[in-house]
Amino acid sequence: MTSKQGATHGLLFVLSAPSGTGKDTVIRRLKEQGLPIHISVSVTTRAPRPGEINGVHYHFISREEYHHMLANNELLEHAEVHGNWYGVPRRPVREWLAAGEDVLLKIDVQGAATVRQKVPEAIFIFLAPQSIDELSRRLSARRSETQEDRARRLADAAYELEQQQWYDYRVVNRQGHLDEAVEKVKAIIIAEHCRVQPRHIEI
Amino acid sequence: MTSKQGATHGLLFVLSAPSGTGKDTVIRRLKEQGLPIHISVSVTTRAPRPGEINGVHYHFISREEYHHMLANNELLEHAEVHGNWYGVPRRPVREWLAAGEDVLLKIDVQGAATVRQKVPEAIFIFLAPQSIDELSRRLSARRSETQEDRARRLADAAYELEQQQWYDYRVVNRQGHLDEAVEKVKAIIIAEHCRVQPRHIEI
Repeated sequence: MTSKQGATHGLLFVLSAPSGTGKDTVIRRLKEQGLPIHISVSVTTRAPRPGEINGVHYHFISREEYHHMLANNELLEHAEVHGNWYGVPRRPVREWLAAGEDVLLKIDVQGAATVRQKVPEAIFIFLAPQSIDELSRRLSARRSETQEDRARRLADAAYELEQQQWYDYRVVNRQGHLDEAVEKVKAIIIAEHCRVQPRHIEI
Repeated sequence: MTSKQGATHGLLFVLSAPSGTGKDTVIRRLKEQGLPIHISVSVTTRAPRPGEINGVHYHFISREEYHHMLANNELLEHAEVHGNWYGVPRRPVREWLAAGEDVLLKIDVQGAATVRQKVPEAIFIFLAPQSIDELSRRLSARRSETQEDRARRLADAAYELEQQQWYDYRVVNRQGHLDEAVEKVKAIIIAEHCRVQPRHIEI
């Protein structure tokens, strides 16, 4: 009997949410509360939105760099969304997990589905908006996008919401109750570390 | 999509711990923090220890009353421990769950094993002492018991610790870190409500 509980390796969490559901805000709060978890920063070929910081929100790379990584099997998963390419660099995730540290992948449902096939023992969390109407309102408030972008995101969101059924956990980010959503995601991470049967995560 | 997450029925949690591990203290803290969960009070034929309140720690009943409940199938589970009989009244548990409210059963590993056979979808949490030495120290500080009682409890604890392997979750109640143990049990309860696949609990 030791004071270390459950897994001796780090755990891999996957957080997905339709655009505009507030996953970046939830993740920022988790980090502010000192939760010991690495946030995997994805690569993308899309242009940064105003306010997005390279290396924080994404690693913004060229299509050439992206295809180089892909060809060298350096991406844990990759997917095309809204005409742009996204991918999760494999090496840092593998190194953190091997060091016994948790990792959170912030990826869309397509990417999550791929990770699930490759790493079924990962823990999948879907952050859901309170309603489609609420999501529409949040997207309209995002001035960095065109009307067309917003309409496309909303259509995609409907598809993404259908996919939540295969996730392990669902957390609703209710309007005005951000702290509640953050607490729930945090609770899921803490609870998973209390599992008697450790998850064998290999990537 | 609604704001109600996961299960529409209440969830059934089972908390076990070797004597002296501090489960009553953990449960009291959970209630003090306003966690909306009913604590099922077991019946027992043993004599109350000093400080124990009838209807709070246990319903202290006679052997005649006990056998009457048993004969009428009014006990969800029952077991003999240290020469005394214990049981969980079925009706309040069933009614709370049907009303969509959570219930926590505070029972020993024998009783938990029975509940697991009858209600496999219940969630089993083992509260573990930091070490056998620490447990021995706590039991020695409990003045209400004889030396013989303590020795017997310690021997039983070794057996009980072996049983934790089949529990869903294990939380170590580290000396001086009660808040940590309380937070973990609370996290497990919150996380279980976020499961996408609801548990079908029938008792």
